[in-house]
Amino acid sequence: MSDALTVPRALAAEFLGPALLAGVVVGSGILAERLAAGNAAVALLGNTLATVTALGVLIVLFGPLSGAHFNPAVSLVFALRRELAWRRAAAFGATQLIAMTLGVWIAHAMFEQPVLQWSSKVRASYGEMLGEFVATFWLLLTIVGTRAARADWSALTVPAAIAAGYWFTSSTSFANPAITIARALTDTFSGVRPADVVPLVAAQILGALAASAVSRRLFGSGTAPTASPL
Amino acid sequence: MSDALTVPRALAAEFLGPALLAGVVVGSGILAERLAAGNAAVALLGNTLATVTALGVLIVLFGPLSGAHFNPAVSLVFALRRELAWRRAAAFGATQLIAMTLGVWIAHAMFEQPVLQWSSKVRASYGEMLGEFVATFWLLLTIVGTRAARADWSALTVPAAIAAGYWFTSSTSFANPAITIARALTDTFSGVRPADVVPLVAAQILGALAASAVSRRLFGSGTAPTASPL
Amino acid sequence: MSDALTVPRALAAEFLGPALLAGVVVGSGILAERLAAGNAAVALLGNTLATVTALGVLIVLFGPLSGAHFNPAVSLVFALRRELAWRRAAAFGATQLIAMTLGVWIAHAMFEQPVLQWSSKVRASYGEMLGEFVATFWLLLTIVGTRAARADWSALTVPAAIAAGYWFTSSTSFANPAITIARALTDTFSGVRPADVVPLVAAQILGALAASAVSRRLFGSGTAPTASPL
Amino acid sequence: MSDALTVPRALAAEFLGPALLAGVVVGSGILAERLAAGNAAVALLGNTLATVTALGVLIVLFGPLSGAHFNPAVSLVFALRRELAWRRAAAFGATQLIAMTLGVWIAHAMFEQPVLQWSSKVRASYGEMLGEFVATFWLLLTIVGTRAARADWSALTVPAAIAAGYWFTSSTSFANPAITIARALTDTFSGVRPADVVPLVAAQILGALAASAVSRRLFGSGTAPTASPL
Repeated sequence: MSDALTVPRALAAEFLGPALLAGVVVGSGILAERLAAGNAAVALLGNTLATVTALGVLIVLFGPLSGAHFNPAVSLVFALRRELAWRRAAAFGATQLIAMTLGVWIAHAMFEQPVLQWSSKVRASYGEMLGEFVATFWLLLTIVGTRAARADWSALTVPAAIAAGYWFTSSTSFANPAITIARALTDTFSGVRPADVVPLVAAQILGALAASAVSRRLFGSGTAPTASPL
Repeated sequence: MSDALTVPRALAAEFLGPALLAGVVVGSGILAERLAAGNAAVALLGNTLATVTALGVLIVLFGPLSGAHFNPAVSLVFALRRELAWRRAAAFGATQLIAMTLGVWIAHAMFEQPVLQWSSKVRASYGEMLGEFVATFWLLLTIVGTRAARADWSALTVPAAIAAGYWFTSSTSFANPAITIARALTDTFSGVRPADVVPLVAAQILGALAASAVSRRLFGSGTAPTASPL
Repeated sequence: MSDALTVPRALAAEFLGPALLAGVVVGSGILAERLAAGNAAVALLGNTLATVTALGVLIVLFGPLSGAHFNPAVSLVFALRRELAWRRAAAFGATQLIAMTLGVWIAHAMFEQPVLQWSSKVRASYGEMLGEFVATFWLLLTIVGTRAARADWSALTVPAAIAAGYWFTSSTSFANPAITIARALTDTFSGVRPADVVPLVAAQILGALAASAVSRRLFGSGTAPTASPL
Repeated sequence: MSDALTVPRALAAEFLGPALLAGVVVGSGILAERLAAGNAAVALLGNTLATVTALGVLIVLFGPLSGAHFNPAVSLVFALRRELAWRRAAAFGATQLIAMTLGVWIAHAMFEQPVLQWSSKVRASYGEMLGEFVATFWLLLTIVGTRAARADWSALTVPAAIAAGYWFTSSTSFANPAITIARALTDTFSGVRPADVVPLVAAQILGALAASAVSRRLFGSGTAPTASPL
């Protein structure tokens, strides 16, 4: 297919995917907390179930169109691997951020909450920064390693990595700068205080860079032909 | 196979599938609520688990016979895509509705409840209408997109989309006009007040039409040969 | 392979599989109830999770050796389909029953309970009989239908059918005469009173026969070559 | 690839995999217990979910590099099967143990707990020893049997076996000498008292040897070419 056809579709995929994903993360957080009768682990089970099933579907649907990044840290690593032009990585990142903001607002509308909110949930500890470093390292290692080992299973392994990340990291695994910013816009279960966004994102970028370096050694590198269309 | 052989089997599939599916949705709602000691999120976990595992099985079993629609909104979209004759879509829809009503009654009989009931659960808010629009858009996008991207995984992606929908939409995702009507016939966990059926179904049809339009752009359209036998 | 080699392996598979399966069902019932702080739905989630993951593994391991029946109702249906000699079906059934009894006792030993017990849990209602009819119909429809539609997914669909059955039937789905008898030997979460075994097994056999008849029409019949080695 | 290239990668895989796995097991135990409001079954659901999703990912990523043992009992069985040199099995075991210790410490750091801890959780009963025997037998039977029956599904069956093991054994299934030792170093949900490590490990080794003998009969043996690169 010519570039003129594929680029708009890739951008549409990087819009629709993140919008739906953020809507699922925030919407399921609201519903799960509302139903869970004060048991936060039960709420997190519902939040996890919704997030990973939706993510798996979105990777199946949009993987062939854009690579299903949905995450500036992912686009960054593919740019570093020279599999994505920097200009496109930037366009992807901006699209993801706008889409995720919209997704948060749609979740608010569905649950009849004020559309515009700021989170008050503090996530500022040293342990949570380490958590985000580990979570993003783990996510990127999974994404790059799956492409090397069994590319057609990424719709299974990437959601599985997120499921584990929600439960084993002290920060419950944002692992995505765009959703971190978007989740600052909701004062519900999945929110994060705006003041904490910058250190969390910094930790995420460090984790992504570490994963990029490690996975290059373990799984190989370069610009070899890949499953991704871009 | 000749049409005379395949049409009865397709109708049988569109009867047995929806009957079992509705029985699972309503029956698991009754059992889950009874066991969950007042924690509605735990009940919804059980209800989700039963629904999505049964749906996955039914898609494997009946996909080759009828396409495993089980849902008038799905048959509508395939008719719009000219992959299903309008006459057959109508027969599918009527069969689905009758079957789901029967499935609800079998669930009542298993749990020794009065067979004939009317739900009293109000689901009438603007947010729930938006929820059904989003839920049906999401379901149809998944169905059409999976056929384009990885048709043999529909028994994984469609249940995954329903699992997410149960948790991230404010209406807990009916996304199916036939099951919406059938669920008006049960005054249990999964019921919906008859008065709320029409606006919910209207939202579902709008969501399906929106998904049909978007997926045509994203995943292509037309009457290309498909995996569905009809 | 010659018959002299495959028959002992098939019997070993029909011993080890049911022994492990019964140990998992009963053991996870004990642990789940002990940990669940009185929330029976949470206990059933744990019981379901253990049962279906173990069953999936056992079908992968033993499917090539014996067809992974683990269930006299399954062996009965394959005998009716003339894919299994009646003499072997009888040997399978006896082996399954002995193995499941042993599995229950091993679970008791692991949890330091008296090895020999009789259940006192009443499951005698008309609704539970209907539940077992539906549960066994559903299980056999899944087994036969999966062989016709996508034989290499039976390790996914059969556990999925059991997961749904645990939650949507009023009897929580025994669907297996051998495990019904074996579960009469444990006075724990998953037990059933000996007096209720006969009517439950009768309902199971009727459900299996109904599934055999329906699936013959829907999915075809006869002694066509199959994936099963026997 | 030449041995000089593959051995360092295999050791890196047997370091990174166990480190991440132990971090997931301990970290998710801490978070799950903290959130579960005293319901230990809910905590175990979260702990199970994290463990099995992470294990599945790690097997996909590192299976091609090292066989994804992550477990001295597994390396032992492959050495007995003459598929792994004894010298390498020893190197694997030492690497796994060091890595899992590090993983436990990283989990402590993420949750801002003292890095150095000793567990006080007693797991010393006869039933728990039997539990570890059964758990390790079950894990190794799954690993060897999956290689014989459907090698490319080991990332599904091995985590499924662990999920079942967490719930049906009285010891909640360590089934791994390295993680047993490492879990003596955490006084949290998943810990075990140092004094109980030796009998648990002894039970694990007996279970692994029993599985090796049984699986040789059932699934065949010898040094036939395998999927493992070493």
